[in-house]
Amino acid sequence: MSAKIDMARFARFCKDMGFIYQSSEIYGGINGFWDYGPLGVELKRNIKEAWWHDMVRHPPVGPDGRDLRMVGLDCAIIMNPRVWEASGHVAGFSDLMVDCKECKGRFRADQIQDIPCPLKPSLMVGKYEKCQLTEPRAFNLMFQTYVGAVQSPENVAYLRPETAQGIFVNFKNVLDSSRLKLPFGIAQIGKAFRNEINPRNYTFRSREFEQMEIEFFCHPKDSMMWYEYWREVRKQWYVRLGLTSDKLRAREQSREELAHYSCGTTDIEYLFPFADEPQELEGVAHRGDFDLKAHAQHSGKDLSYFDEDGWNALLAERLAPFQQDKPRREEEKKRLEREEKPKFQFLPHVIEPSAGVDRFLLAVLCEAYTEDQVPDAKGNLESRTVMRFHPRLAPIKAAVFPLVNKDGMDEIAYKLYRELKAHFPVVYDHSGAIGRRYRRQDEAGTPFCITIDGETLQNSSVTIRDRDTLRQIRINLSEVRSWLADALRPA
Amino acid sequence: MSAKIDMARFARFCKDMGFIYQSSEIYGGINGFWDYGPLGVELKRNIKEAWWHDMVRHPPVGPDGRDLRMVGLDCAIIMNPRVWEASGHVAGFSDLMVDCKECKGRFRADQIQDIPCPLKPSLMVGKYEKCQLTEPRAFNLMFQTYVGAVQSPENVAYLRPETAQGIFVNFKNVLDSSRLKLPFGIAQIGKAFRNEINPRNYTFRSREFEQMEIEFFCHPKDSMMWYEYWREVRKQWYVRLGLTSDKLRAREQSREELAHYSCGTTDIEYLFPFADEPQELEGVAHRGDFDLKAHAQHSGKDLSYFDEDGWNALLAERLAPFQQDKPRREEEKKRLEREEKPKFQFLPHVIEPSAGVDRFLLAVLCEAYTEDQVPDAKGNLESRTVMRFHPRLAPIKAAVFPLVNKDGMDEIAYKLYRELKAHFPVVYDHSGAIGRRYRRQDEAGTPFCITIDGETLQNSSVTIRDRDTLRQIRINLSEVRSWLADALRPA
Repeated sequence: MSAKIDMARFARFCKDMGFIYQSSEIYGGINGFWDYGPLGVELKRNIKEAWWHDMVRHPPVGPDGRDLRMVGLDCAIIMNPRVWEASGHVAGFSDLMVDCKECKGRFRADQIQDIPCPLKPSLMVGKYEKCQLTEPRAFNLMFQTYVGAVQSPENVAYLRPETAQGIFVNFKNVLDSSRLKLPFGIAQIGKAFRNEINPRNYTFRSREFEQMEIEFFCHPKDSMMWYEYWREVRKQWYVRLGLTSDKLRAREQSREELAHYSCGTTDIEYLFPFADEPQELEGVAHRGDFDLKAHAQHSGKDLSYFDEDGWNALLAERLAPFQQDKPRREEEKKRLEREEKPKFQFLPHVIEPSAGVDRFLLAVLCEAYTEDQVPDAKGNLESRTVMRFHPRLAPIKAAVFPLVNKDGMDEIAYKLYRELKAHFPVVYDHSGAIGRRYRRQDEAGTPFCITIDGETLQNSSVTIRDRDTLRQIRINLSEVRSWLADALRPA
Repeated sequence: MSAKIDMARFARFCKDMGFIYQSSEIYGGINGFWDYGPLGVELKRNIKEAWWHDMVRHPPVGPDGRDLRMVGLDCAIIMNPRVWEASGHVAGFSDLMVDCKECKGRFRADQIQDIPCPLKPSLMVGKYEKCQLTEPRAFNLMFQTYVGAVQSPENVAYLRPETAQGIFVNFKNVLDSSRLKLPFGIAQIGKAFRNEINPRNYTFRSREFEQMEIEFFCHPKDSMMWYEYWREVRKQWYVRLGLTSDKLRAREQSREELAHYSCGTTDIEYLFPFADEPQELEGVAHRGDFDLKAHAQHSGKDLSYFDEDGWNALLAERLAPFQQDKPRREEEKKRLEREEKPKFQFLPHVIEPSAGVDRFLLAVLCEAYTEDQVPDAKGNLESRTVMRFHPRLAPIKAAVFPLVNKDGMDEIAYKLYRELKAHFPVVYDHSGAIGRRYRRQDEAGTPFCITIDGETLQNSSVTIRDRDTLRQIRINLSEVRSWLADALRPA
C-alpha cells in the first residue's frame, strides 16, 4: 500500500528546502519541537487559511441546503486551572510510566518493548534484565507553570493540551454575543502542548503542535445525524486538498477504543512512510453533553440552551384551540410552562472534528514528495524531486523567469512578476540556467513557471510550464493573469 | 488631545459584541489573559493577514525601486533554554520586586505608589506604613516549565518572551535554504508570554500576547539608512489601516531609555483612552549585531554572512590590470584573499520592527469606537454606537437584508448573499426591523448594508447604505459584487 520513502533523506530535503527545521538547532535542538522555514510557514498558512475559509467563512452546506452557522474563537493558551480539573485533564490526562532503578531512565510503560536502554542500546528497556523497573505510575502530560510572582500551589497553571476546552468555557459568551441558534459550530485554530515522553516520527508526535478544532453544538436528537455528516465532510476535505491516494482512510473506533465520554469516534488516518499502519490526522468525535455538563457542574453556571423557537411553536399549537376562551388559555399556558417548557431547556450535544495542522502538513509533504526522471535541455533523462502540492496549498503559485537577462527580457519579466504578485504569491528568478530554475521550483512545489524569451519580444507570447505534466503552452502576456486565476481556482 | 471613553463601558461593549472576553470567565477569569470572540477573532485575523500581506507576500518597495526580499518563519514557543541564556533573558529579563512582610504581597518596586495594599485598599502599598517592604529583588518575567518526565534543573524550559530570538537562531538555516542575499528580512507572527506582575489596562499589558516581528538583516554600513526606512514604513502602515487621528505618533527614544544593545529605537505610540501619555504599539529598534554575535558565541557556530557579490566585484576590479600577466594575477589574488576577503565576511546588522497584535487591535477598537446620533425611520434622532473600522480590517464587509420576508425578497437576498460570500466575508440577516438590523451592523463595524426591497422586485435595484455617511445609493443587483470589490479595495 505504501511506497516507502527514506525518512532521514526526506527530513534532510525538508530542511534544505526551508520547509521544516529542528527547533534551536544551533544549540543541539530540543526534542519534540520543530520550526517551519520560509516555504514551510507558507504551506502551514495555506492549510490553516483553507480550513478557516472552508469551515468558517464559507462553511459547508447543511442538509437543509443552507450554510451551516459557524463562528470563530481565539482563546488564550493559559487558562484558569479549574478548566482542566473540570475537563478531567488534571486527574486523568496521563501516561503510565516506569522508572529503571539501574539507569534512572523513565519510560512509557506501553513502549518499553521498543525503546533502547541507555545502558545497553542494543537491547530494549523491556528486554534488558539489568533494568529493574518500578511499578507503573501515572505521569500527567500537561506542561505546568506558575502565573504570578510566587511559585505556590494556588498559582499553578497549565499550557492547554487541546484547544477544545476554550470553546466549551466560552459557549455561553458566544451564545450571548452572537444571537446564534442551534445547530451551530465554534471553530478555533491554535497551539496546544503535550509533554510527550517519547516524541517521535519526525513532526508527527511533537510536544508543541497546532490544532484546528470545531465544536458543533446540536439538539441531542439530531446528534447522530450530525456525527455522520461531519465524518463525511471532514474526510472529503482532505481529498479535495490533494490526499487522493488510498493512503487516506476513515476508521470508526471500536467500542474498546472509545473515550469514556464518547458515543462514537471516527479517526481520519493517513499511511505515513514511517509507519506500518495508518495514523490519525483528525478525530471526529461524538462527545454528547460531557463537556458542557462538566463545566456547568464545576463552575456552578447554567450552560444550558433554551430552544425558544421550539417552545413558541408548541405554545402556538397547544393554545390555538383556546383562542376565544381567555381563562382556559391562561390556565393551559401555565400548565405548559410547568410541564413542557423545561424540555426546551437542555445541554446541547457536541460533535467535535479535531484536526492536527502539523500532521496534515506532514501528510501533504509525504503525499507530494515524488522522485522522477525528466528530459533535460539536451533530451537526456535527469532525476528530479518534485513536490506535487495541490495548487491551493502550494507556497508559491507561479515563478516568472526571463530566459536570459538581456534584450529587455528581464524588464518584461519583472513587470509581469509585479503585476501577478498583487494577486498571487509568485517569485521572480533570473539566476542560473533555465533548467536549474525549473528544478528549484519543482522542489518548492510551484505549479507553474512562466518564461519570457525571444519570442516574447516578437509577439508578446510567453511559455507556461506545468510542474506535473511538464507540458508547455504559449499564451499572450496580457492573458497570463486571468489564465493563472483560472488554473488556481479550486475545482 | 484624547476624547476619553469610559473603559469599563467600552470593555462591556466589546464583550457584548463578541470582540473580547475575559479568559476562563465562568471560573472567575485569570488575570492577564483574554479570549477573542467571533468578531474579535476575525478582526485579529484581518490584522495579521494585512501585516503578512503588506510585509511578506507583497513587501514594501526598497530605495532601489524593487521589492524588499522578505520571507516568513514560524518557530516553536518552547526553545532550547540556552537560547535565553545567550539572549540575556535568563540573567536580565526581570523586574525589581518587593515583598510586604505584613500582607505577604509581592509588588513591582516601581509601582508601589499606585497599587492598593491588600490589607488596607484605601492606601497604596508604598504609603501604608504597616507594609514593611523587603529590599527589591529581581524577578524573572519568563514563564518556566519542565520538558520531559523529570522536573530537574536540566529539564527547565521557558515560554518565549518574544518571537525575535527564534529568527536569530534560524538565521543560518534560512540563509542556507533560501539563497537570500543581503539585505533581507525574516518575519514571524506568534504568541509570546511574560509573567507580568501587574497586568493592566484591559488587554494592553497581558501575560499572553501575540507579536508580529521582522528582523531585517543588512550590511552594517547601510544600517542607519534601513533604520530610518523602517521607521517610516511602519508608521505609515498604521495610518493606512485607519489610525489617522493625531493619537498616533512616532517617538525616538532618548539615550537614557535605549536598551544597552540598541543604537536607536523609535516607539510608534498610540494615545489610548486609559492613559495620559501615548503608549507603545511597536518598537523599531536598531539592534546592531548584538543578537547574532551573542548566539555565535554561545553556540560556537559561525553565523556570519559572506558577501559573495561584493567580493567578486572587488576581485574583478583589482585583477583587471593583470589580465595578461598570469603569475602576478595569481599573486595579487592570494594577497587579496588574505587581506581583503575577510572584510566581506561579517555579522549583519539588524533593524527590528516589532509590533504587538493585541495592542494594535485594541488601538483599532478604540479609534473605531464612536457614539453618535442618527435619524431613525421616523426621522427622530437616536443614539447609536458605530465601529468605524477600516474596510480591510472590518470583520464583516457587508450585510444583506430582505426588507421583509415575503414576496420573494428573502429568496433574492439569500441568493445575493451566497454569491457575495464566495468573495467576501458577508452576513445575511432577515430578523427584526430594518433599523435594528442597521444598528447591529454599525456595532459590528460592517461598512455596507445591502437591502432588497419592493423596488428590487420591479427593477432589480438594491440599496447600499454606507456605515459612516449613512448615504444610501441604488444600484443594479448584478453590479453589487463589482461595486463592493471596488469599495473594499485598499486605496
